[in-house]
Amino acid sequence: MERRGRIDVDISGKLQEMSLPNMKRQFSVLFGEMTLVNRAHTVMLYERGVHSRETAAEILKTIDRIEEELTPDDLSLQNGEDLYMNVEHQMIARMGAGAGKMHTGRSRNDLFSCLQRMVCRRELLKVMRSASELEELLLGFAEKNVDTVMTGYTHLQPAQPTTAAHFVTSYLEMLQRDMKRLRAAYGSANLNALGGAAFAGTGFPIDRERTAELLGFDGLVENTWDSVASKDFFMEAEAAYGIMQSSFSRFATDLYTWCTDEFGFWEFGGQVSGQSSIMPQKKNPTVLENIRSLAGDGASAFGLSALTVKNTPLSFILDGHRMSDDFMDATNSVLASLEYMKEALRYSSVHKERALRMAERNFCTVTALADHLVSEYGIPFREAHHITGGMVGDAKEAGLDVTGMDAALLGKWAEIILGHGLPATDEEVRAALLPVSNVESKKCAGGPSPERVRDMIAHLSAQAAADAAWTEEAAGRIERAYAGLRVAADEIIGK
Amino acid sequence: MERRGRIDVDISGKLQEMSLPNMKRQFSVLFGEMTLVNRAHTVMLYERGVHSRETAAEILKTIDRIEEELTPDDLSLQNGEDLYMNVEHQMIARMGAGAGKMHTGRSRNDLFSCLQRMVCRRELLKVMRSASELEELLLGFAEKNVDTVMTGYTHLQPAQPTTAAHFVTSYLEMLQRDMKRLRAAYGSANLNALGGAAFAGTGFPIDRERTAELLGFDGLVENTWDSVASKDFFMEAEAAYGIMQSSFSRFATDLYTWCTDEFGFWEFGGQVSGQSSIMPQKKNPTVLENIRSLAGDGASAFGLSALTVKNTPLSFILDGHRMSDDFMDATNSVLASLEYMKEALRYSSVHKERALRMAERNFCTVTALADHLVSEYGIPFREAHHITGGMVGDAKEAGLDVTGMDAALLGKWAEIILGHGLPATDEEVRAALLPVSNVESKKCAGGPSPERVRDMIAHLSAQAAADAAWTEEAAGRIERAYAGLRVAADEIIGK
Amino acid sequence: MERRGRIDVDISGKLQEMSLPNMKRQFSVLFGEMTLVNRAHTVMLYERGVHSRETAAEILKTIDRIEEELTPDDLSLQNGEDLYMNVEHQMIARMGAGAGKMHTGRSRNDLFSCLQRMVCRRELLKVMRSASELEELLLGFAEKNVDTVMTGYTHLQPAQPTTAAHFVTSYLEMLQRDMKRLRAAYGSANLNALGGAAFAGTGFPIDRERTAELLGFDGLVENTWDSVASKDFFMEAEAAYGIMQSSFSRFATDLYTWCTDEFGFWEFGGQVSGQSSIMPQKKNPTVLENIRSLAGDGASAFGLSALTVKNTPLSFILDGHRMSDDFMDATNSVLASLEYMKEALRYSSVHKERALRMAERNFCTVTALADHLVSEYGIPFREAHHITGGMVGDAKEAGLDVTGMDAALLGKWAEIILGHGLPATDEEVRAALLPVSNVESKKCAGGPSPERVRDMIAHLSAQAAADAAWTEEAAGRIERAYAGLRVAADEIIGK
Amino acid sequence: MERRGRIDVDISGKLQEMSLPNMKRQFSVLFGEMTLVNRAHTVMLYERGVHSRETAAEILKTIDRIEEELTPDDLSLQNGEDLYMNVEHQMIARMGAGAGKMHTGRSRNDLFSCLQRMVCRRELLKVMRSASELEELLLGFAEKNVDTVMTGYTHLQPAQPTTAAHFVTSYLEMLQRDMKRLRAAYGSANLNALGGAAFAGTGFPIDRERTAELLGFDGLVENTWDSVASKDFFMEAEAAYGIMQSSFSRFATDLYTWCTDEFGFWEFGGQVSGQSSIMPQKKNPTVLENIRSLAGDGASAFGLSALTVKNTPLSFILDGHRMSDDFMDATNSVLASLEYMKEALRYSSVHKERALRMAERNFCTVTALADHLVSEYGIPFREAHHITGGMVGDAKEAGLDVTGMDAALLGKWAEIILGHGLPATDEEVRAALLPVSNVESKKCAGGPSPERVRDMIAHLSAQAAADAAWTEEAAGRIERAYAGLRVAADEIIGK
Repeated sequence: MERRGRIDVDISGKLQEMSLPNMKRQFSVLFGEMTLVNRAHTVMLYERGVHSRETAAEILKTIDRIEEELTPDDLSLQNGEDLYMNVEHQMIARMGAGAGKMHTGRSRNDLFSCLQRMVCRRELLKVMRSASELEELLLGFAEKNVDTVMTGYTHLQPAQPTTAAHFVTSYLEMLQRDMKRLRAAYGSANLNALGGAAFAGTGFPIDRERTAELLGFDGLVENTWDSVASKDFFMEAEAAYGIMQSSFSRFATDLYTWCTDEFGFWEFGGQVSGQSSIMPQKKNPTVLENIRSLAGDGASAFGLSALTVKNTPLSFILDGHRMSDDFMDATNSVLASLEYMKEALRYSSVHKERALRMAERNFCTVTALADHLVSEYGIPFREAHHITGGMVGDAKEAGLDVTGMDAALLGKWAEIILGHGLPATDEEVRAALLPVSNVESKKCAGGPSPERVRDMIAHLSAQAAADAAWTEEAAGRIERAYAGLRVAADEIIGK
Repeated sequence: MERRGRIDVDISGKLQEMSLPNMKRQFSVLFGEMTLVNRAHTVMLYERGVHSRETAAEILKTIDRIEEELTPDDLSLQNGEDLYMNVEHQMIARMGAGAGKMHTGRSRNDLFSCLQRMVCRRELLKVMRSASELEELLLGFAEKNVDTVMTGYTHLQPAQPTTAAHFVTSYLEMLQRDMKRLRAAYGSANLNALGGAAFAGTGFPIDRERTAELLGFDGLVENTWDSVASKDFFMEAEAAYGIMQSSFSRFATDLYTWCTDEFGFWEFGGQVSGQSSIMPQKKNPTVLENIRSLAGDGASAFGLSALTVKNTPLSFILDGHRMSDDFMDATNSVLASLEYMKEALRYSSVHKERALRMAERNFCTVTALADHLVSEYGIPFREAHHITGGMVGDAKEAGLDVTGMDAALLGKWAEIILGHGLPATDEEVRAALLPVSNVESKKCAGGPSPERVRDMIAHLSAQAAADAAWTEEAAGRIERAYAGLRVAADEIIGK
Repeated sequence: MERRGRIDVDISGKLQEMSLPNMKRQFSVLFGEMTLVNRAHTVMLYERGVHSRETAAEILKTIDRIEEELTPDDLSLQNGEDLYMNVEHQMIARMGAGAGKMHTGRSRNDLFSCLQRMVCRRELLKVMRSASELEELLLGFAEKNVDTVMTGYTHLQPAQPTTAAHFVTSYLEMLQRDMKRLRAAYGSANLNALGGAAFAGTGFPIDRERTAELLGFDGLVENTWDSVASKDFFMEAEAAYGIMQSSFSRFATDLYTWCTDEFGFWEFGGQVSGQSSIMPQKKNPTVLENIRSLAGDGASAFGLSALTVKNTPLSFILDGHRMSDDFMDATNSVLASLEYMKEALRYSSVHKERALRMAERNFCTVTALADHLVSEYGIPFREAHHITGGMVGDAKEAGLDVTGMDAALLGKWAEIILGHGLPATDEEVRAALLPVSNVESKKCAGGPSPERVRDMIAHLSAQAAADAAWTEEAAGRIERAYAGLRVAADEIIGK
Repeated sequence: MERRGRIDVDISGKLQEMSLPNMKRQFSVLFGEMTLVNRAHTVMLYERGVHSRETAAEILKTIDRIEEELTPDDLSLQNGEDLYMNVEHQMIARMGAGAGKMHTGRSRNDLFSCLQRMVCRRELLKVMRSASELEELLLGFAEKNVDTVMTGYTHLQPAQPTTAAHFVTSYLEMLQRDMKRLRAAYGSANLNALGGAAFAGTGFPIDRERTAELLGFDGLVENTWDSVASKDFFMEAEAAYGIMQSSFSRFATDLYTWCTDEFGFWEFGGQVSGQSSIMPQKKNPTVLENIRSLAGDGASAFGLSALTVKNTPLSFILDGHRMSDDFMDATNSVLASLEYMKEALRYSSVHKERALRMAERNFCTVTALADHLVSEYGIPFREAHHITGGMVGDAKEAGLDVTGMDAALLGKWAEIILGHGLPATDEEVRAALLPVSNVESKKCAGGPSPERVRDMIAHLSAQAAADAAWTEEAAGRIERAYAGLRVAADEIIGK
């Protein structure tokens, strides 16, 4: 390592050996953005009169060359201790010592903090785009299943009839809340840290608003100390990931049960299933295990970040530096989760007949009979609950399913609970116990009745469109900024 | 336990013994809100024609009585398995079986989900109010210390001079981002889950918008399944807590170092310090340990929630039920953190003279000399860095502090690095190395120069006012809703 | 607060208000052990000649009085900042300033570190005793269900027949590994930290081995710095809790599925079930939700401890102090988990007939047919797998269950895969597909055949006895030490 | 994908694309061990008469060929869905359908569970070897610094004098506890899961004890269900990692403070330090940041495993499959931590003079004066504490360091506290306040006096030797088993 002044730092061979692979990984994640920041910083310094046009032009041309020429194989710990110093050395090798002027009014601390924010927004855009695709698939599935009656379970026991669309739209509503959190995280990330220098800003007449504009940031992290030291934007994104994946794990959990041999009203195609190496009869819903397996990664990344930040000085430190790697890992997990969710939806279907037949027999409609007693005969709900509970007990004891419940049985239990019978007919009892009409009657806002679910689909569809539009608008702003940066640089270069 | 119909459930003595203390804790956390929900639901059912005025009036009067009369000692597992069933039984004891009508079109699932959201918003308001007080204290501290020059550290080594106000405003900026996240969590929580019933809504002609209005919610969680099963609002709030406390841990960490005997430029008063039981000379900054000790609780609560939700069916389950307790614990930790932060600020001060003297000697101003060489003599930054690095090495070797660096030393190193001397004078070198002017020169946006810090204080102060106003406006909306609910109930009762 | 010397520490009202409840909680957890440590330390100082008999006797009598008289209501922040200072002040009030001699050669740091270890071992003994009861219940359940044939699932699809005892003994084997970890944690905790003083030991001629003996410790944490600062024993215990509860969550998960209406071969009694407030037909296996709900607490406590310890100085700090509270919370959760597990076992049973009938029909025995083709006809396993897979596909397509598979179908697929038929008979095919004989054939070590499960029960039963004996032996050592301490103290007092 | 029988599974292109990189990573981690297991299983099946010698020989030869020939590039999702199916297909391609016999009496579930345990023990051996090297370095550092007097801090305030060896041996004692936990985890992992098949064992006459012997396992996970489903051994190892890294974070934290400009009694060489890109005076102890940055990984891996296992069915599932990757990541972090710790020790030293000078002046010896008053004049400790506290306050107020405390000042405070003076001399006071004799007086077991630290070094050194011997003995057992396996295979092949 070159000797810089008198403070001897001569990194041991062991540390060099350990650092190099990390730096190469960093290169693949950060180099594109680093080039953009170098370009923007140079343009701004020229505009503020710090660089002459000649100096700026030469630096900008060298940045362009480096962008084309540099590969991970050029990286070396001989040339400096990190990715930035490598880039600077490569530039010096091409244009001479003047390349060192590129770093005027700046430090690696604000440079890397700025890059971390660019990486964060870039990855969040990917996640949001993928989530928008999932929104579309959920919508499509819901639209096709507005009338698909099935049993809803509470505590995994048959509870009340509902529809597959009602189930799926609940996940859509959750996902749209996830999107809101992802957008908030994007907003927290998309602020300019450049100009913070080591932490105390700089005396050079830099213009932080201008680099924000050239790099597509929405504004500044104003305080320069905060700007280099705080990594809360990573934690905010990771929390959003963790919450989203938690929901996915529940989706996988219910469907894993519903596609069993015993429940059997939901099915996954061979495209997303696995076989056994020894059991010839098996078709395993492995895509759900994929979803479930990944579902702890976001929350785990948040927890790791909390551990990483805990009790550290307010400063740009290696602890903060590693957080971009952890964030990338979490993002990759989330992107994989989203793909698995989409594949699961593409290749799954509801066995409509079986689902209906089960709901017609498994006592999940009994609450409707109790409600009927309340509204038709003015009985307090609690007593109607006791009467119908008695009827269920008798029917189960006799080995009957719900179709075995009739007016006589109702009369018996009315007598026991109320002290008098009720004039209900067999038809009345049976009608109350039919799942389809039961579902249709659930007309409260957000309920499973087809018309309410269609309302929801309308709302959710509008929001899905808004979600997608937001993402594209954000991506567009960045693209326009980068185009503007290219124009500004070319103008200086004289192209 | 009373026998309800034929499905025998007769909770074992062991389970009863284990449940009772939990229920009593729940009572203290939830009973107030449960009363409000019972009232609002009854008013709405009356307005929708489900209850007659007579029935509604009787129920509402009984709710009022219960509100006054019920104490934790009345709770019993004989009377039902949970808090709601206890309340219903107490009402039946007072007004007869008709009290059972109160639960029409509702289930414990949506009731408790609704209560959890009310608890969440109530506690978030407390946290935001307390955080606003902390904002004020930070502002006050900053205002008094705009000119308090001190050393800023990177990697805990003297880096560059800054001011105590620059340090403190960075925490204010972080805290205002925390506030934004808390408000987002508030928005996610403050939606009506009532009407979801068991998960499938109800066929009774309920009006979910109306109960939302009476209870001060901003809107609905529309899908009824989602409304009872999802607990993402807790996780969102806990993530916000965790991020906030992570920052607090860093605050405590730096000040813990700065108030040591060795650094010694920050001090904590006896009001927030501890003594030793055996070492007579000790004054320990225990308030900082209090802050640090609590700082993992928010992140831990988030992690526990992720564990709790993982792979559960989409349903209102005991797993989701416990999350309000965990959220309350996390809130209490955060409220304590905030109090400790406030006490720490109230009883701490900077030793201005010592802080300045240290910055004048510990080489933290050397970057300014390098910058000076760049702007005065047009030397590339990298070479200026080498020259000044050489000077520092020589001075340290000679046992001198930074005041030992002069024009002769500069000349020597210019010769070595550039191959020629520089016409700089001793005065020029010394001027560049003075911390006060150094700080003043850092005029970039967000930098430590007093004028920039005053800018920030202005921005932060405006935002602090906006933060506090938002909280009061949100609290006011709820108060007005509750007042309206009281009026509506009284009208039905005929008061 | 009394002024002690010239270092003014005068804790603010706010901090006093916040500390008092914590101290009262500490009192209930620690006071008993603190009394024992005070007594042992005094006896040892007397034996080493530091205290005269007179002084020692007076201190010991006052310790006895305090033990009887002190209540949480006596605690006050006026009398000192923590529990120990309160005790000392109460002693001074009774016997004069000489009571201050009790603290000779000691500090609160080693005192509380010692108490934390005593609490840890005390609670671990409770957990191990409770776990031994669970071992007994699992053994009893296994013994009764050695012949209870049921379907085993992989990926929640019917896989192969097994028995309920095979399932339950797997949890017993896990639990015995948990016990091993708990014992290791006990060993890590049960070491004497007393004598570490502030961290640097003391010049007084103390005898750490002797206090270890009087307090029932197995030895010393030798290095005094380590002895006051390290809290790894808490983390080790919490990790053991977390692993145990993870297993419990899986137990709850499978049984939650198996007791559904659809699977229905396992049942939970009304003693451990819940009803619905609105759905009359419901009997919900709430005890399983209790188990599942708690199952993240141990792992969460470990994570919180990691957060708490992260980046703290090596010292007895408030951060370390709080860890006993967190450990108590985790212990209480684990104790509750164990009770729920025991109740679940006490009130659950297998529907033997239904379980068998399902296994006879759901294709879970098909692997046995493939194995039969391998051993009878020398066909490579992979081809046997293809043949039987073909048979399953045809049977399912024809709407048949496994009893629809016969020799003809086998012949057809042998032809397709091997190019020639096989001389198997219908009886041969059917015999291979019977679950009972299938289970009986699984005679490899640890397999489900009744004789192998009886072997396991024998091993597990012996280990359960050894586990229980270990715990009682450990508890006995402590009791004998405490008895010895009482005798030594009485001798000095002159009783 | 080849069609296997009638159960159509035809994995989608998307899933194939996502799986391939994972499988290639698995290859690099597991293929060596898979070869060994294939070989051992074949030998055992031959010995039990399941395979003829001819069949066994052919399979074993093909295993040898595959071992040499297979590379990650041969892997394909066309050939089967996972690594094992790829290997089997490659074998079939070389020796025909008979290669399918290799999988007789086995499933991928027990195969991969067995491999995970082999990976776990293999990596734990690496960690233990590396930790033994760290033990050596800590011992060496301690030996050189038995007399290196320095200030010990509590709450980061000067507390009492101690030595650098006392500090370092505390970490050695911790590390030896870590070793104990690692060995326990090794014991939990090093058990044979092979023979569990899908989960229910097999009817083939396999010998699980024999494969245990051939593969170097210490015994069996007996219950076959447990053997394929439980992953507690990973969690146990990760907990051990997490605890170890927690301690490392504290090591880094204290040294980070002690090597500051202000404390300055510890120093790190340029081999483990970083420079600033802009601040010429900086030498940053980056190796400590490396240690600290990694220190959350073990605990995080434990937390992720808890999330992964939570609420999963008891079965070999993808969730359990991914845990080997997480464990590998955690292991790599721990191995890196250990390297950083070693480099930190190799390139650090104590500034002995400065350390001593600080301890002579910063009041850290005052407790010794209080102790002296107790033992010399029989004053209760609490009053001695008040007297010396008063003296410190006066000295500090007068701007003096501890050498300003004399007999007159002692007399003044004795008068105030006791009501009478004390006959102490200036010499007596000064002697009590000297750090070197103070340290020498701390002769209790585990204290900092050189003779006690030498005792500890002797104990720790013996244990370090025992630790290293244990590891080598464990590694040797495996090597011998593998050699025996090679011999057994060669015998069958006829080499």
